[in-house]
Amino acid sequence: MTSTNPKDFGFVREIPEGDSFERDVCSDCGWINYVNPKVVVGSVVTFEDKFLLCRRAINPRKGFWTLPAGFMEQKETTEEGAIREAYEEANANIRIRDMLGIYNITHISQVQIMYRAVLDVPEFSAGPESLEVELFTWDEIPWEDLAFPTVYWALHQYNSIKNEDRFIPFSNAEGDMLTKSFEIMKR
Amino acid sequence: MTSTNPKDFGFVREIPEGDSFERDVCSDCGWINYVNPKVVVGSVVTFEDKFLLCRRAINPRKGFWTLPAGFMEQKETTEEGAIREAYEEANANIRIRDMLGIYNITHISQVQIMYRAVLDVPEFSAGPESLEVELFTWDEIPWEDLAFPTVYWALHQYNSIKNEDRFIPFSNAEGDMLTKSFEIMKR
Repeated sequence: MTSTNPKDFGFVREIPEGDSFERDVCSDCGWINYVNPKVVVGSVVTFEDKFLLCRRAINPRKGFWTLPAGFMEQKETTEEGAIREAYEEANANIRIRDMLGIYNITHISQVQIMYRAVLDVPEFSAGPESLEVELFTWDEIPWEDLAFPTVYWALHQYNSIKNEDRFIPFSNAEGDMLTKSFEIMKR
Repeated sequence: MTSTNPKDFGFVREIPEGDSFERDVCSDCGWINYVNPKVVVGSVVTFEDKFLLCRRAINPRKGFWTLPAGFMEQKETTEEGAIREAYEEANANIRIRDMLGIYNITHISQVQIMYRAVLDVPEFSAGPESLEVELFTWDEIPWEDLAFPTVYWALHQYNSIKNEDRFIPFSNAEGDMLTKSFEIMKR
């Protein structure tokens, strides 16, 4: 894969005329690379009392377990993106229920929108970005080997409203849940 | 302002190695321009029973009335972006209450995240992107001169829960509200 870092190309960092923010501008042709936060869409997918998790085949966090999620693409809705990601990563046809939460991960400029979703039949397998895909009961979840703090947030927030039909979506974890979730990144 | 259309620069449209989607790739240096949906953050801002609207000084829809909203920037939260936009467009210091709704505008690849916000004091003025900024009661709102359907959605959805402390955020308008909102674009 080619580098995606503007520093490896002919870009210079400057504030374009009429703008308020520094952007990368191509020194060859004047193209301005406007970069805005990216949206990650994903879901906590359940079948009966089990949770669908994918073991990552790619970096970052290769070998660790994550929820089906990824970057939203042009011309799709957030729900369509979450469905596509579950299909790409787990060959799973999921049905979206409702929005679980929206997380702001400012240091990497991501807005993560997570849904509750269900598998109507337990059919799935590892897509190209997954080493394996499995259904786990709550107690079986590989808590020591989760890929990201947001996976911990989403699973715990889901569990706290698992019997609710309607609830207000969550935002970033706070307090004890936040502290515990950061332990994940030490592994 | 320089063009932002890759067609005006040395880009060719192709599927990069290992990718599933067509991207614009610079024919000079190989830079891949990954474009994902952009997040628009904004708010329905109230002072007592009045709504803060801005008359647009720029295209698209110059001269029409809109809510303070705009593209989210790197390293900020969605709430911080909504606060910044109200300051830039209306010199207004708003206080965010909660999320009003999240809209998927697929034909322009936008995810719009709208908040309920309040002005604690009625101090505001037109920023560089606004011709004027005003507070309107519900009946005074210039319904015939709104800039975008989503402004209509957000105002009506707000009004439907104005006495609620907690509610589930809305999504795209449907049915009659959607139909009526499209009338706006004929003006």
